[in-house]
Amino acid sequence: MNKVQFLRLAGILAVFLLAGCASQVEDQTTARRFAWIVSPEVHPDNRVTFRYRAPNAGEVLVDAQFESEPVAMTLDTSGVWSVTLGPVKPDVYPYSFLVDGIRVMDPGNPHYFPNERFKGSLVDVRGEAPRVHSLKEVPHGVVNYEYYPSKTLGTTARVLVYTPPGYEESAEKHYPVFYLISGTTDTEETCFKVGRANLIADNLIAAGKAVPMIIVMPYGNPAALLPAGTQPANQGELFDRDLLNDLMPYIEANYRTLNDRNHRAIGGFSRGGGQTLRIGLGNLDRFSWICCYSAYLGREEFARDFKYVYEDPGKTNEMLDLLWISVGNDDFLYQRTIDFIDILKGYGIDHKTLVSTGGHTWMNVKLYLAETVKCLFQD
Amino acid sequence: MNKVQFLRLAGILAVFLLAGCASQVEDQTTARRFAWIVSPEVHPDNRVTFRYRAPNAGEVLVDAQFESEPVAMTLDTSGVWSVTLGPVKPDVYPYSFLVDGIRVMDPGNPHYFPNERFKGSLVDVRGEAPRVHSLKEVPHGVVNYEYYPSKTLGTTARVLVYTPPGYEESAEKHYPVFYLISGTTDTEETCFKVGRANLIADNLIAAGKAVPMIIVMPYGNPAALLPAGTQPANQGELFDRDLLNDLMPYIEANYRTLNDRNHRAIGGFSRGGGQTLRIGLGNLDRFSWICCYSAYLGREEFARDFKYVYEDPGKTNEMLDLLWISVGNDDFLYQRTIDFIDILKGYGIDHKTLVSTGGHTWMNVKLYLAETVKCLFQD
Repeated sequence: MNKVQFLRLAGILAVFLLAGCASQVEDQTTARRFAWIVSPEVHPDNRVTFRYRAPNAGEVLVDAQFESEPVAMTLDTSGVWSVTLGPVKPDVYPYSFLVDGIRVMDPGNPHYFPNERFKGSLVDVRGEAPRVHSLKEVPHGVVNYEYYPSKTLGTTARVLVYTPPGYEESAEKHYPVFYLISGTTDTEETCFKVGRANLIADNLIAAGKAVPMIIVMPYGNPAALLPAGTQPANQGELFDRDLLNDLMPYIEANYRTLNDRNHRAIGGFSRGGGQTLRIGLGNLDRFSWICCYSAYLGREEFARDFKYVYEDPGKTNEMLDLLWISVGNDDFLYQRTIDFIDILKGYGIDHKTLVSTGGHTWMNVKLYLAETVKCLFQD
Repeated sequence: MNKVQFLRLAGILAVFLLAGCASQVEDQTTARRFAWIVSPEVHPDNRVTFRYRAPNAGEVLVDAQFESEPVAMTLDTSGVWSVTLGPVKPDVYPYSFLVDGIRVMDPGNPHYFPNERFKGSLVDVRGEAPRVHSLKEVPHGVVNYEYYPSKTLGTTARVLVYTPPGYEESAEKHYPVFYLISGTTDTEETCFKVGRANLIADNLIAAGKAVPMIIVMPYGNPAALLPAGTQPANQGELFDRDLLNDLMPYIEANYRTLNDRNHRAIGGFSRGGGQTLRIGLGNLDRFSWICCYSAYLGREEFARDFKYVYEDPGKTNEMLDLLWISVGNDDFLYQRTIDFIDILKGYGIDHKTLVSTGGHTWMNVKLYLAETVKCLFQD
């Protein structure tokens, strides 16, 4: 047995022994050697301790999104690196470790940041008062993992669908629908697991601040589902067609939806914000609520593709129940988003804006989500 | 801007540029430098190429569960390590990389192994003919992520619930229920994302080989949901009480279930197999189908706690519709499981066994799941 084989077996045994599955085994030395470490540990005063076991590493940093840059951790005599940061403003933050330059998730934290390209963990600093995205004791909706057939993609695709509390109790009631798209490299799970769209809706509905609605969370990069080499040149257009021609009919056939433009909203973050503007403004006959988080349309594209939107602003304003644009003042797309807002102002197209602090982050997406979910489908 | 800050920003920019979100940005040098690599790449002949970018690493191995030990990868001039393995027997396998001894997921693969303690990725070697766990063009059920209130835990807990195809179409039809528990360090997502219980059921139902059923996938380690220091000494008993007194009533109140012992099954893997035997054999008034995957009860525990099971084997056999025990001949629990089967034989308690090849793996869980789902609730 070589060293790696030994470590593999020792790891399995340690897990097994710690779980108390094999109480007859007397020598628990292995288990003690592999005792689990707690990470992250959120303290009552909102400080957070991160720990990572790496006795042989030369340097371990924690890269947490509440810090402006990665922070060095300190090695103790048991081989565990740790650092305590904060107090931190209560929120849910992505973080990862940099172990001799290698980026890793926190192995002992089951809360993932679902993503195609990077692997991060999540820490929930709850604070004393629960926030709008916190798990509270209110009636909860359900998030459904659904497969749907897509003719556009020529394959079966996956989508997450939130149904609000009470959806199962009545076979009669129909609901408005919010299509919510995550950003570049995110997956169909990101608005659920990082954005907490379900908990935000649960809490706002319970407080009487939001209308019960269905939230549909598609995968923003369906070209990745196609066999290598078969992706079309215009991958954005593929998403649009799948959403309009496959996903929407599937949702409307399988859920109790209200199927008119005044009961359909579309929103998204980053790339999903661009998709939102293109699909929403491009299909005002289908959507009257449009929510763009940290994204924009460029002046040229808008002038070229959205003439019918700006040539009769009065008609556009009559059709739009909401055109919402939000961005953080530290977002690397801040200036472009502000430029887009200026374009809308220049044409006299009604819109609402929220310029927050912070950057291109899911902390901001949660804020924007909560603010827009409050507005949607309200008279 | 220090080096790490630069890497952070360059990474964000690269992702953004590659997504074509900022077409006006002229210099895409950064994007090219960070061009995405494909990993894993499954070839038509069932070989698999793994790739990992780490120009500065001294050694990178891939630890794939179809190999007996980690395999060294080779560095190319672009800073990417790679190796091609196989041909591999078609299945879904966990794997991870060992980068200078640091275990990491595959950053470019969105398919996670949900787990509390280690972080792995999944590779699907489909082969020419789809397998019983493959995504096929058949009617699909839905996996619901549910929150339920637990008096036992004093908190809100999470459970995944599979409803079969057709469940939403009829408001009348009621279904049998299979409680399916994952293993030590697994989460409530593992039977779904790694075990593919939903796809196995979809495929077997479509083929007329399984009865449409609801599958409930709880979290096997609810003590972890309690505040540090408040966990009871007997954490196993906590799970049992939560399942019997909180989860089961919640499911039966919120789903259209058949609520008698002949329409309730319980099954599980590893620690979940032990939980299955304890809860199932301990509550024959509630369960008549018991499926144990890669686990056992020790002779002493059985003699001490299960007298009513063995003292009147005739009565027990009359009550049991199925007692299923399976294990791989390379499983580190093989001998103990065989000993348990011998105990059952000795007492004359009816049971079915499947001794497969392979070890304590989720490849085997999928096999056992498919075989048992075929049996459940059949006359």
